[in-house]
Amino acid sequence: MIGGRRPIQGRKPADRRVRVERPHSAYFRYSGPGQLVAKPAASTPRTGLDRTVQRWKAWLLGRPLASEEEIGERLPKKLALPIFSSDAISSSAYATDEILRVLVLAGSAALFISIDVAIAIAVLLTVVSLSYRQVCRAYPSGGGAYVVARENLSQTAGLIAAAALFIDYMMTVAVSTASAVSQAYSVWPQLYDIRIEIAIVSIALITVANLRGLREAGNIFAMPTYLFVGMALLMIGLGLSHIIGGTVPQLPDPAEVIKPPQTLEPLVGITGLILLLRAFAGGAVALTGVEAIANGVPAFKPPESKNAGNTMTMMAILLGILFVGITFVGNRFGIQPTTEAGPTAIAQVSSSVFGAGSPLFVLFQISTALILFLAVNTSFNAFPRLAAILAEDGFMPRQFSLRGDRLAFSWGIVVLAVVAALLLVAFQGDVHLLIPLYSVGVFVCFTLSQVGMVRHWISSKESGWQWRMVVNGLGAVLTFVVLIVVASIKFAAGAYLVIILIPTLVMLMMFIQRQYQASAKALAVRPDFVVRPPAREERAIVTVPTINRAVVRAVNVARSIADDVIAVYISDNPEASRELRERWERQIPGVQLVIVESPYRALAGPLMAYLDVLDRAWPPDKPEPVTFVVVPEYVALHWWERILYNQSSRRLRAVLLGRPHTVVVDVPYRRDDPDRFHYDNEPHADPGGPEPASSEPPANES
Amino acid sequence: MIGGRRPIQGRKPADRRVRVERPHSAYFRYSGPGQLVAKPAASTPRTGLDRTVQRWKAWLLGRPLASEEEIGERLPKKLALPIFSSDAISSSAYATDEILRVLVLAGSAALFISIDVAIAIAVLLTVVSLSYRQVCRAYPSGGGAYVVARENLSQTAGLIAAAALFIDYMMTVAVSTASAVSQAYSVWPQLYDIRIEIAIVSIALITVANLRGLREAGNIFAMPTYLFVGMALLMIGLGLSHIIGGTVPQLPDPAEVIKPPQTLEPLVGITGLILLLRAFAGGAVALTGVEAIANGVPAFKPPESKNAGNTMTMMAILLGILFVGITFVGNRFGIQPTTEAGPTAIAQVSSSVFGAGSPLFVLFQISTALILFLAVNTSFNAFPRLAAILAEDGFMPRQFSLRGDRLAFSWGIVVLAVVAALLLVAFQGDVHLLIPLYSVGVFVCFTLSQVGMVRHWISSKESGWQWRMVVNGLGAVLTFVVLIVVASIKFAAGAYLVIILIPTLVMLMMFIQRQYQASAKALAVRPDFVVRPPAREERAIVTVPTINRAVVRAVNVARSIADDVIAVYISDNPEASRELRERWERQIPGVQLVIVESPYRALAGPLMAYLDVLDRAWPPDKPEPVTFVVVPEYVALHWWERILYNQSSRRLRAVLLGRPHTVVVDVPYRRDDPDRFHYDNEPHADPGGPEPASSEPPANES
Repeated sequence: MIGGRRPIQGRKPADRRVRVERPHSAYFRYSGPGQLVAKPAASTPRTGLDRTVQRWKAWLLGRPLASEEEIGERLPKKLALPIFSSDAISSSAYATDEILRVLVLAGSAALFISIDVAIAIAVLLTVVSLSYRQVCRAYPSGGGAYVVARENLSQTAGLIAAAALFIDYMMTVAVSTASAVSQAYSVWPQLYDIRIEIAIVSIALITVANLRGLREAGNIFAMPTYLFVGMALLMIGLGLSHIIGGTVPQLPDPAEVIKPPQTLEPLVGITGLILLLRAFAGGAVALTGVEAIANGVPAFKPPESKNAGNTMTMMAILLGILFVGITFVGNRFGIQPTTEAGPTAIAQVSSSVFGAGSPLFVLFQISTALILFLAVNTSFNAFPRLAAILAEDGFMPRQFSLRGDRLAFSWGIVVLAVVAALLLVAFQGDVHLLIPLYSVGVFVCFTLSQVGMVRHWISSKESGWQWRMVVNGLGAVLTFVVLIVVASIKFAAGAYLVIILIPTLVMLMMFIQRQYQASAKALAVRPDFVVRPPAREERAIVTVPTINRAVVRAVNVARSIADDVIAVYISDNPEASRELRERWERQIPGVQLVIVESPYRALAGPLMAYLDVLDRAWPPDKPEPVTFVVVPEYVALHWWERILYNQSSRRLRAVLLGRPHTVVVDVPYRRDDPDRFHYDNEPHADPGGPEPASSEPPANES
Repeated sequence: MIGGRRPIQGRKPADRRVRVERPHSAYFRYSGPGQLVAKPAASTPRTGLDRTVQRWKAWLLGRPLASEEEIGERLPKKLALPIFSSDAISSSAYATDEILRVLVLAGSAALFISIDVAIAIAVLLTVVSLSYRQVCRAYPSGGGAYVVARENLSQTAGLIAAAALFIDYMMTVAVSTASAVSQAYSVWPQLYDIRIEIAIVSIALITVANLRGLREAGNIFAMPTYLFVGMALLMIGLGLSHIIGGTVPQLPDPAEVIKPPQTLEPLVGITGLILLLRAFAGGAVALTGVEAIANGVPAFKPPESKNAGNTMTMMAILLGILFVGITFVGNRFGIQPTTEAGPTAIAQVSSSVFGAGSPLFVLFQISTALILFLAVNTSFNAFPRLAAILAEDGFMPRQFSLRGDRLAFSWGIVVLAVVAALLLVAFQGDVHLLIPLYSVGVFVCFTLSQVGMVRHWISSKESGWQWRMVVNGLGAVLTFVVLIVVASIKFAAGAYLVIILIPTLVMLMMFIQRQYQASAKALAVRPDFVVRPPAREERAIVTVPTINRAVVRAVNVARSIADDVIAVYISDNPEASRELRERWERQIPGVQLVIVESPYRALAGPLMAYLDVLDRAWPPDKPEPVTFVVVPEYVALHWWERILYNQSSRRLRAVLLGRPHTVVVDVPYRRDDPDRFHYDNEPHADPGGPEPASSEPPANES
């Protein structure tokens, strides 16, 4: 808001007396015949309220950005990595625990297998991220699983992927915020009572950061992500040096350790396979969030696809190292799975590496809590972009594809924030019930996008398509297995909701598309159709609530539109009707006045009926005329004035817009109109004059 | 909804092919040249939704009533008495207790004086009701204290009276409903948890009864009032016969008796006088509600003033007999004052007369509870009528003076119900805190109207004006004393709120009047001003979001309005601009297209700036032209479609209406328009044709 960037404040309506040589230069740049480019001054607010709103908005969100600045808002890889990866990378903070909690059912000795399971998941991660790297290359406009499934499988498959992602993103925001707040109140119990308020304020802050635009959001969120990654790598390195040096520290078993059950489950046969699959499915939660980059390719600096692909690779490598490294070090340190209340695997490792209670340990714990909370931000970037792509395809309201002042997709950001806040309030901050919905959604998308990529390679036959197809086919099988395992284990716990929610969302999106298609069809004009000038007759009806300046102006507007002008006065008071007719014939000669008595005090009904009567009386051999209904409208100067005026003209307008071959003409009259007597045909004669201002409210404006 | 009264359902828009001889006869009766009277069919709803709404409304509220049926809705005295008196008469159920509770401070012996206090209050009642009887005669259009004070004292005095009454009526509804519900949950404690819900449902029922119109409300409310009056008279008669026969039953003292204090207050000197005044002020609560009839004179059958005056007398006599009778019998029976939890004086008398627990006793208790609850209804009748009178004087929004379908003042009824419900929710059903507000308000009105009547007699000098003036002067002094006593005793307990609320309301009403006066002045047309036909030039601007049928229609409407037509396309995509211009020049030749690039994606700002530029470019020696801004509007068929379309045209309209000498022309296009190709100048050529319906949403409609 400094210097040249500041919009010109307080522009007044044009003053005609000062003839300017280049009248457009204040607001526009001339760029060709009939072609102007608006300057920021063209959008200067005109009323005091608008100015205040704009000032606050600029303070909160920053100055508006021009569309061409979009490229400057693009993300360099070093900001894109934390923005799009915080969700995925943060999952290394809890994925190891998910494996250990399953394996312990086969006894403490079985925990050793966690390394193998982690490596299997790392292989899956490699396959999935290779697949998405290909998606970034093949679909540079973003959209991830939605676009891949739509292009290669079917529209419905695409919408299923989109619905699953929508659910996933909303859940991520609600669940991550709730769990971040629960970290806070487990330290300061007095915060428990205001946990909902804290969660909502946190969401509001993230919302504002995202509305300010991508780059600014990136600056805010980059630090904690890099801090976490750096410290986790340090921790793994120190842990490995301990292991190599044989100086593995002795860990005291925490109180919350999960003891193996009395009857251990065997690790052989079908039961053993199922147990291994469950451990695999549990650890596969490390993959959630991996798809975010593929949804947001257009947010990268050019070359978008290449940068996004490389960022994807970088993220997968980091996530793989962190996940396998933490699992490996933890395993060699002999850490035990704990209940939800106990320290996590990563906390056990860090306390033994950095020393329990040491400043490094505390800093690492804080950075872990922060990155878990910032996982929310991945959703705030991916959801609005996916919604924008769907809106452009006509599956969501168009508003989602419009960029706000700061080039962010404001609608998507705000809708995501509102839904997540409502979920938090509805579940009183305890949204863990809904977690199962969440990994099911992600693996639906993974499977659909891998299958889609298999089809892509078959049809594209690019170089190396055979081995690429095999990679994606393997990925499809693995992610499908995880999907089935997760969905069947968590079915009763909430995964069944997916079966209700995804089809509902898909049908809603299809319904919206049908609406847009139907209206596009109804509105379409043949490309070879040449429009000729109109040849219809015109008729103007003026609705007359009394005789005042607004009415006089409306009558003259009507006379300038058509030769056939009828003024209609709807009355519920015969006495008032007589007075009005007498005054009308004296003061507005030459304009026909029809008085309609309305014994039921209705306004819109009798007017519509009168218009119908006029249509019926029209000679059937002539094409119907266009009926202009001219409505005098007293314009409220302030918002509270709307309670006092204009109720009836608003109602009339709503009804008239539904009528065939009827055009509604609003003739506004403002009390502070600088040209008050305009259209009274005597610009310098004041038609008001000596009539005393009565204390009656203007009869037309209730 | 039977036979001839049923409105004709499902009228279709006029079908031109069937030429009718008297096209208006279905909807109108011809009553003179240029003069029609609408039949009920003229207001038949046109859409399915409207029809459903109308059907439910008719079920809930009854068929609409014509204005001329208003006289049939007027109240005969036998219905007016219970409708307007339930508040006043019900106060006989608790006024005696208010006296006894003060007198007991001077010892049990002092209770004997209660009869004298009751007689003094009866005298006051006589004076006040005589005064209001005169008000009914002198001010047949109703309004009571407001009109009397406005006419005889000043506008401000009138508004103070009105504000006091508004507060009083709102409090009556909230307090009476809360206490009626507390009666219910003291019998059935399990209702306590849903007391708010019960109170709100009760208010909703009373609201509906009142929206159905006065007569129907009267039928519902007459029975309990007459039941209470009849049984109370029977009880007093039986009590008197016991007293005369010397067979006064022995009463067991209830447990909740208020024992006289240790140090009795003397009944002599200043202290004694103050005690007596407090007892008098306490009992004067019997007068609340007396003013209701004077506010509602126009609700009576003609001759309105006479009938209202006689009903007023009847009510005062009944109230006087009940109040003095109950106090006298109670006194002779030796009843004791009790705390809030104990039986009231009237309950003690009825249990000794009818026999404790007897069916007559139970019936009487029920009728007492009912009439206390129905006191609410007096407010529902008086408030909307007073609001209507104030609205006609311009002190409240005009809507309050409009009669609904059933001739009731719907706005007043609904506002009263909503405010009372909000009070109940805000105070969680415990609104007793606010009771002091309530008698203060009533006595402010009494005093103002008595003083006003004194002035009235002085200036009118009617026959007998001297003694009438003395009566009202006495009443003014007495009611003023009560006002001072009540206000000073209850000052800290809440009466101070009156000092904040009344001036606030008065200032608000004055503010509203100033708004209406200012707009009436701005709009006034001199009676001798004769309007001549317009002589201005016209210019039409069409806002063009794309090329479709809605735009084609709008362009042709613009061409029929003015010769000077400019189409303006606001774009944030140079590629789309080029395409549009190419298509425009081919398909819509002869209409100038200006493309405005909007780098900040704003729509309204650049358009307004462009209009300003056009104004500046106009030759300064010619009068400014009228600018018609023609907005193509795709009309949503269903309410949910509004989310998908028309966001931008709504925004444009709001901004344009504030612009000087600018007229907004809405050209609607409905998908189901029976005359879809109208204005495409080839009624039988389909401009849509072979162009495939793309899956894109129509670009203009977001």
